[in-house]
Amino acid sequence: MILILKSGVTQEQIDHVIERVESMGFAAHLSRGTYRTIIGIIGDEDKTRVAPLRAIAGVADVLPVLPPYKLASREAHPQDSVIQVGSTSVGGGHLAMIAGPCSVEEPERMDRIADSIKASGANILRGGAFKPRTSPYAFQGLGEEGLKILRATGDRYQLPVVTEVTDPRNVALIADYADMLQIGARNMQNFVLLTEVGRTSKPVLLKRGMSATVSDLLMCAEYILSQGNSQVVLCERGVRGFDSATRNLFDVAAVALVKQLSHLPIIVDPSHATGRPDLIPACALAGLAAGADGVHIEVHDCPEEAKSDGPQALLPEQYHELMQQMKAVASVLHKQVAA
Amino acid sequence: MILILKSGVTQEQIDHVIERVESMGFAAHLSRGTYRTIIGIIGDEDKTRVAPLRAIAGVADVLPVLPPYKLASREAHPQDSVIQVGSTSVGGGHLAMIAGPCSVEEPERMDRIADSIKASGANILRGGAFKPRTSPYAFQGLGEEGLKILRATGDRYQLPVVTEVTDPRNVALIADYADMLQIGARNMQNFVLLTEVGRTSKPVLLKRGMSATVSDLLMCAEYILSQGNSQVVLCERGVRGFDSATRNLFDVAAVALVKQLSHLPIIVDPSHATGRPDLIPACALAGLAAGADGVHIEVHDCPEEAKSDGPQALLPEQYHELMQQMKAVASVLHKQVAA
Amino acid sequence: MILILKSGVTQEQIDHVIERVESMGFAAHLSRGTYRTIIGIIGDEDKTRVAPLRAIAGVADVLPVLPPYKLASREAHPQDSVIQVGSTSVGGGHLAMIAGPCSVEEPERMDRIADSIKASGANILRGGAFKPRTSPYAFQGLGEEGLKILRATGDRYQLPVVTEVTDPRNVALIADYADMLQIGARNMQNFVLLTEVGRTSKPVLLKRGMSATVSDLLMCAEYILSQGNSQVVLCERGVRGFDSATRNLFDVAAVALVKQLSHLPIIVDPSHATGRPDLIPACALAGLAAGADGVHIEVHDCPEEAKSDGPQALLPEQYHELMQQMKAVASVLHKQVAA
Amino acid sequence: MILILKSGVTQEQIDHVIERVESMGFAAHLSRGTYRTIIGIIGDEDKTRVAPLRAIAGVADVLPVLPPYKLASREAHPQDSVIQVGSTSVGGGHLAMIAGPCSVEEPERMDRIADSIKASGANILRGGAFKPRTSPYAFQGLGEEGLKILRATGDRYQLPVVTEVTDPRNVALIADYADMLQIGARNMQNFVLLTEVGRTSKPVLLKRGMSATVSDLLMCAEYILSQGNSQVVLCERGVRGFDSATRNLFDVAAVALVKQLSHLPIIVDPSHATGRPDLIPACALAGLAAGADGVHIEVHDCPEEAKSDGPQALLPEQYHELMQQMKAVASVLHKQVAA
Repeated sequence: MILILKSGVTQEQIDHVIERVESMGFAAHLSRGTYRTIIGIIGDEDKTRVAPLRAIAGVADVLPVLPPYKLASREAHPQDSVIQVGSTSVGGGHLAMIAGPCSVEEPERMDRIADSIKASGANILRGGAFKPRTSPYAFQGLGEEGLKILRATGDRYQLPVVTEVTDPRNVALIADYADMLQIGARNMQNFVLLTEVGRTSKPVLLKRGMSATVSDLLMCAEYILSQGNSQVVLCERGVRGFDSATRNLFDVAAVALVKQLSHLPIIVDPSHATGRPDLIPACALAGLAAGADGVHIEVHDCPEEAKSDGPQALLPEQYHELMQQMKAVASVLHKQVAA
Repeated sequence: MILILKSGVTQEQIDHVIERVESMGFAAHLSRGTYRTIIGIIGDEDKTRVAPLRAIAGVADVLPVLPPYKLASREAHPQDSVIQVGSTSVGGGHLAMIAGPCSVEEPERMDRIADSIKASGANILRGGAFKPRTSPYAFQGLGEEGLKILRATGDRYQLPVVTEVTDPRNVALIADYADMLQIGARNMQNFVLLTEVGRTSKPVLLKRGMSATVSDLLMCAEYILSQGNSQVVLCERGVRGFDSATRNLFDVAAVALVKQLSHLPIIVDPSHATGRPDLIPACALAGLAAGADGVHIEVHDCPEEAKSDGPQALLPEQYHELMQQMKAVASVLHKQVAA
Repeated sequence: MILILKSGVTQEQIDHVIERVESMGFAAHLSRGTYRTIIGIIGDEDKTRVAPLRAIAGVADVLPVLPPYKLASREAHPQDSVIQVGSTSVGGGHLAMIAGPCSVEEPERMDRIADSIKASGANILRGGAFKPRTSPYAFQGLGEEGLKILRATGDRYQLPVVTEVTDPRNVALIADYADMLQIGARNMQNFVLLTEVGRTSKPVLLKRGMSATVSDLLMCAEYILSQGNSQVVLCERGVRGFDSATRNLFDVAAVALVKQLSHLPIIVDPSHATGRPDLIPACALAGLAAGADGVHIEVHDCPEEAKSDGPQALLPEQYHELMQQMKAVASVLHKQVAA
Repeated sequence: MILILKSGVTQEQIDHVIERVESMGFAAHLSRGTYRTIIGIIGDEDKTRVAPLRAIAGVADVLPVLPPYKLASREAHPQDSVIQVGSTSVGGGHLAMIAGPCSVEEPERMDRIADSIKASGANILRGGAFKPRTSPYAFQGLGEEGLKILRATGDRYQLPVVTEVTDPRNVALIADYADMLQIGARNMQNFVLLTEVGRTSKPVLLKRGMSATVSDLLMCAEYILSQGNSQVVLCERGVRGFDSATRNLFDVAAVALVKQLSHLPIIVDPSHATGRPDLIPACALAGLAAGADGVHIEVHDCPEEAKSDGPQALLPEQYHELMQQMKAVASVLHKQVAA
């Protein structure tokens, strides 16, 4: 940490700052500049970070030198992590192609959708059984019945399945059925839930919150990793923006930034990022071109009958056509869709 | 709802749209404009809202006519709600003056802080026992021990107490100790937690999420209200902004907007909105001037020793001075600090 | 400036950085921390700021120690500046109460509006003659004819007048008619225009751009001040936000922040900040409570006939009522409306 | 336009609204819904748009049916526009590969840079002679001398040249030297400047403002087009975001959205979007994958000596390597770099 002292700070204040810093067990390194005095704090940055240094009189600002996450950082783990989701590998050149309806629906429809996306090249099936809906009056998901349908469909089409967890009390139940647990954007900073999924042995798909910085996202991954579960896949799904023409603002540079800062795979979700089927293909391709380790897309065979989020789903034939383009871009970048 | 059809829509598509709308149980009212055809949907807007109308071929856009919340809306309940928190009334001209440390600390310190804020005019004591920290390595709160200290201090100084809930499994426990349950900004859309506090009989302090619109905030209040708990106080605490000079962007107009749209009280939290003690007084006064029903401020008697968020706390004497100004502004606006 | 070097930087790279820094005429002060090496640069920060330090190999980040503006900073000029606009003083406890229609309209209407706002307590009359409209098809203002009307009305009612400049070629013309030159939000970083108004002797009302940080705003003031014109009044008028319920996001904390960082007066413009007459009073009062040196409000006697921005104008009687409240809040804060 | 009337509107108010609408020369089409009455306005939307409809008593909201731009819209011009910049075509499958230093520097350096980017495949040379700098103390460009150097270098290497205009008084001068005129992000809504370049016969590179919606950007293009100059190329260069890890937030979905709404070409500028050389390649490829008609990149052969923006420049060899990847992605998408 670097402390920047206030302009006009007295020697007495400087002495007090150094005394406080040393009483916390750190060493202080004083440097008097042309305009300001700065103090470099030498010690374990995890400890300096949580110390209330900015509250000391005479301190104008506190500048961290290291990122606040460790287990998630590439410095700690230089090679790409490869996460195993059932039979599908994600990361290190292996692309996760996740597709399926927003909500788990009736078995026949799930089968039709799974059959078509599998044929197109998807390698993970998605579907929500416990839905975090913004309205208490909207469809809330089929619950455990939905989990059973999803599991059966996944098994029938040999697709590992991912579904969302929203309640710490349901984590064990959902982990019994699913190959991967999803933390939705609205729960990204639900630290209780992060801790709970961190105690399972299932891989976790962690979606970026709408107002989360990349550092915030990696700190939430750190919560899971710090519980002993190292199987985390991140997901960029758009942040809050000011242009209502799209549902969210797809932050494709965040993909490249995460690849630098962290060893964890990151995929993109253009369905939620744009909320518009007509923009999904462009953003899916952009995500791959920026280095994403996979693409998450909602697919439904009859959007106007979907139980939720129908208007943003691609039709199976649209998904098929997009997959051809995604494979072409991926091959140029020397990546492959895992079987 | 109003459906705007695409330019160049065919008669066949128009017929299909009308057929779909009618099959959902609504009436359709066609209007051909100079450039576009629009269809007004006549029926229960709660039902039209969740129908996948935008997924129907030929529909360019769907415009709602009503807000998505009902119980929280002023149309449903024209008079201001007054919420009772222990002996303190909030709303309808009664100001909630909430103060205390970020985290519950040792009993002697809690007593010192409670004594001073009570003397200044605060009427609710705050303190976190279960802390949602962005780092897994930071102090996570004293847990139930903290609840006991908070309760004892509140009783000793005759101040009702508010503390945060973060886990649906702890709601009953916390409700045993606290007079008011706080939902933090990061959990605003934790629908599981909202449902759980909605099933208690305790008033709830619901903080606005960092990327939540005012409509999003009112929908979260609706979740609580729809469970039968009508005792909700909202809190504006800053949204994500682009200027890192302040921690968040304090949205004072949201206070005035909520007062128009809803009957629920709304208070402001300038401590979290700004993250800077030097800006807290100005924002506290601005919030009151805009019509807020109270002010939430973190106060600590030795910020450089605080277990969390020390750098943003006011000292007791700063709080005292601010209270004099708040009372002066409140009296000009014909509001009063409840005893 | 502080240079943070990359993790794993070599001694050779460190030597190169120091060599580059010294070749630019600065001294370098090396400090090896637990995790990173940092170099404090000792020298004129104006010069270090514009040097391409971050482009030197081995440099991870460059942290400024001082703000980039000097003339606008309170460090350079601790007392509040008081700006004279015709007979009206702004700043140092004197409030600018600016009101009038969006566009200058016909003389009779201008007289009616000026008469009413003067009676309410306004002390500066506004009106646009050259309008920066977002559509090329919208009314663009009356031009010089509008300036003549504005001047005549101002003289008739003894109100100094402010009007917008948008073209460097018109600055001299407008300065002939107006007492104060307004730079609109969309031209805040039109450096050519800033330079031009900086060469006049007229006070300038500089509105904050929609995506400008407070530091950006003060840098634009610096442009004007650096040309020799020290008569600048800043204006907070809302920044771009994500909630379309209001036109912009009124950043009231920016008022308090500017008062700390700068000696220049700052007023608020709730008309543009909210775009909604029903929210203007709350934001006007909030701005004053936060320490603003005045309030700018659009007033029109028949909004449904206004040539521009009618929907956001207050009626004269609404302005009158608001003025009573503004005076009450101002008096509590020991400020006064200048005659 | 669609008018949504207020809840509880009286018959008298409805009659007044209709009377006002008809007096403006439009027809009104009344529709009474379950909850609200709406009025469809039938008439020229250009005229209804600028009428102060929202100011009429009883009107709650005004919803436009058409976008506010016409000449820029794809409805008006379904085929892609192809813009000729010197010998280089832009749009319709032809990619503009613009490269060069931020500022025009000395002739030898310009030659070295032009030589290398030409060899890599760039087809337009950039360089600023009149620089809009955020600090009045920073290098402001070489002025006309810079224009001469840029022209000579462009001629020597057979590269058409683009340079920025910032002052309406310089447009004719710059048009004498340059093949394309750039409007920078900070001047996107400088309507005076837009009008001036619209009166030249030179193609214009119009950069998106930091807080501009896609609709705002297209309205600014409309300003230029409405003056008779149809040669406009748009540029996405990042918008203001909340994560300071990148300079701006690169909005790649805006590229896809513009391609749907408009016939004008749009390119991307990852240099300004990210401000970090390490993220430029990913964003350049993402932009192309999303459908961009070209890529603008700052290249400098010795960034630590650059007169401006050195830290964000690519080295010639980095640009060369990126060009190979850009060509590979472009070929998969059936686009080509124009000779």
